Amino acid sequence: MTTTAEIYAPIQDGLAKFEEHLRKAAEGSNVSLEGCLEHILHSTGKRVRPAVTLLASKFAGKHDESLPILMASAIELLHIATLIHDDAVDKSDTRRGQATISSLFGQDIAMLVGDYVFAKSATVVCDTKNVRVIRTFAETIMALATGELREIWEANDWEQTRQKYFTRIFDKTGSLFCTAAECGALLSDAPETTVQAMKTYGYNVGMAFQIVDDIIDYEGDPAEVGKPIGGDLIKGTFTLPAMIALERFDSKSTLKNLMDAKDEPSLKKAVEYIRSTEAIQASYVVAREFQKKALDALAPFPDIPAKRSLKGIAEYVLERRK
Amino acid sequence: MTTTAEIYAPIQDGLAKFEEHLRKAAEGSNVSLEGCLEHILHSTGKRVRPAVTLLASKFAGKHDESLPILMASAIELLHIATLIHDDAVDKSDTRRGQATISSLFGQDIAMLVGDYVFAKSATVVCDTKNVRVIRTFAETIMALATGELREIWEANDWEQTRQKYFTRIFDKTGSLFCTAAECGALLSDAPETTVQAMKTYGYNVGMAFQIVDDIIDYEGDPAEVGKPIGGDLIKGTFTLPAMIALERFDSKSTLKNLMDAKDEPSLKKAVEYIRSTEAIQASYVVAREFQKKALDALAPFPDIPAKRSLKGIAEYVLERRK
Repeated sequence: MTTTAEIYAPIQDGLAKFEEHLRKAAEGSNVSLEGCLEHILHSTGKRVRPAVTLLASKFAGKHDESLPILMASAIELLHIATLIHDDAVDKSDTRRGQATISSLFGQDIAMLVGDYVFAKSATVVCDTKNVRVIRTFAETIMALATGELREIWEANDWEQTRQKYFTRIFDKTGSLFCTAAECGALLSDAPETTVQAMKTYGYNVGMAFQIVDDIIDYEGDPAEVGKPIGGDLIKGTFTLPAMIALERFDSKSTLKNLMDAKDEPSLKKAVEYIRSTEAIQASYVVAREFQKKALDALAPFPDIPAKRSLKGIAEYVLERRK
Repeated sequence: MTTTAEIYAPIQDGLAKFEEHLRKAAEGSNVSLEGCLEHILHSTGKRVRPAVTLLASKFAGKHDESLPILMASAIELLHIATLIHDDAVDKSDTRRGQATISSLFGQDIAMLVGDYVFAKSATVVCDTKNVRVIRTFAETIMALATGELREIWEANDWEQTRQKYFTRIFDKTGSLFCTAAECGALLSDAPETTVQAMKTYGYNVGMAFQIVDDIIDYEGDPAEVGKPIGGDLIKGTFTLPAMIALERFDSKSTLKNLMDAKDEPSLKKAVEYIRSTEAIQASYVVAREFQKKALDALAPFPDIPAKRSLKGIAEYVLERRK
């Protein structure tokens, strides 16, 4: 199973209703805000996270999809809110080829529109009326903010442990995938073992997703990815490829010296150095370990279309090039 | 009843537990974030909103205060989160004599720490396990963000209606007072009539509070208030004193011409003009109408200490000078 269309086939109706619900999220605020929100909600992303929610809700035999659809909308709105704030922090002008809110309307409006979308996502999740789901969701917002803060606070620290890196990417990315899967299962009244299995799936897919993101920063095609190669290291973000290169492929401390210089020309050379090692392949090995754990979590379930799609997402996460 | 100590007497224990709970909100995040949060949580505000929550919970005869205390913490955390973002938007260096997060750590960290505190407030409110309360809270976060956005979008529009002004100050301030009172009553298992009465009280006290804030911007003592006189108008925020001055005390269009010029020297002259009219007194009349409605909402209740304190808060709101 490789194409997105095939992966999304079992949840086609649910996704259509999700898109409709998302569009409605822009309504009823006020005219200026609606314009802003339509701009964001129309920039169609890959919708991986809401797809995980809808698919994870397919294992309990419950036919009413309305709560998982609400959850999928809340998850995507939360994702969009974090993108608005991240783009403002990173001073990014475009995302997926579209102008960001901060570049169009300034950083202040981006902050407040982001706040509005955070709150909107919280009101949508309240409509599920499930307190466990709502609390998990609120904790996820905390994790997402903490992840971004860690990225700033842990910048330029080339001594940080692998564990620190994993905690940071869990907060930043893994947490939302984890919640997407867990709450999809919870809202289909799945038994606790299923909920835990989906949570494990989401956690591991999310971790693999972010590691691949960090790899693409080193080896992606700048034209396709839409940002320059090695941008993470240049702004001080220490990710897996650089960690592995330092640990295993730097016997003469060439890389360490370049990184310790911390000026842009040296860091650009450091990026080239990392690209020339096998750190990229070694990082893929780590991503694949997470992918395997995600697939293992699905093993106990019967071979239904939703399971094949969740497997497809776990495969896509490693194959994607942007 | 005039002193804060007298007003807070019936909820002394609750407030002490609230402060303890608030201090704990900083714990368990991570070291850098804890430092940041302690700075904010130690800058003791007036705690008016959490006091309203605790007092509003005293009318149903329920002795267990634990849910109202949680709610009071959530309300204050939400208030603090909005202050962090507002100070970042306004580029304010100090608040209540203390350095703001944005001035200490930069706007990016202020945005993310604000996000974290928003999310923290939401997790605290989830601990009440009351879905109606949680949803009202999430809607309040939306209102607060909308209020700040309206302030930007409606800036320099001297034609806006009184209704637009009232909507804006409800979103920005009234909404949180309203929720503080409503949810205090809800979490004491008060009957719906009491909940609605407290909501009406909170709404009107909040509106009066913001109108007085807008008046203080014109007539306060800069040393006491900690910001320059007329700052609102100079940054384009059109509030009640200016509205009334334009409507009733500008027969020769002197003020209108100054305001239409929109440059700082003209706006400073406009501020002086407004201060010289009776627009300030007339604005107090409007604030007093809201205060009266707040007091009227309390009329049906027996004369218990909490009622006297809520009356005291409604009086304090109009008497305060900063």
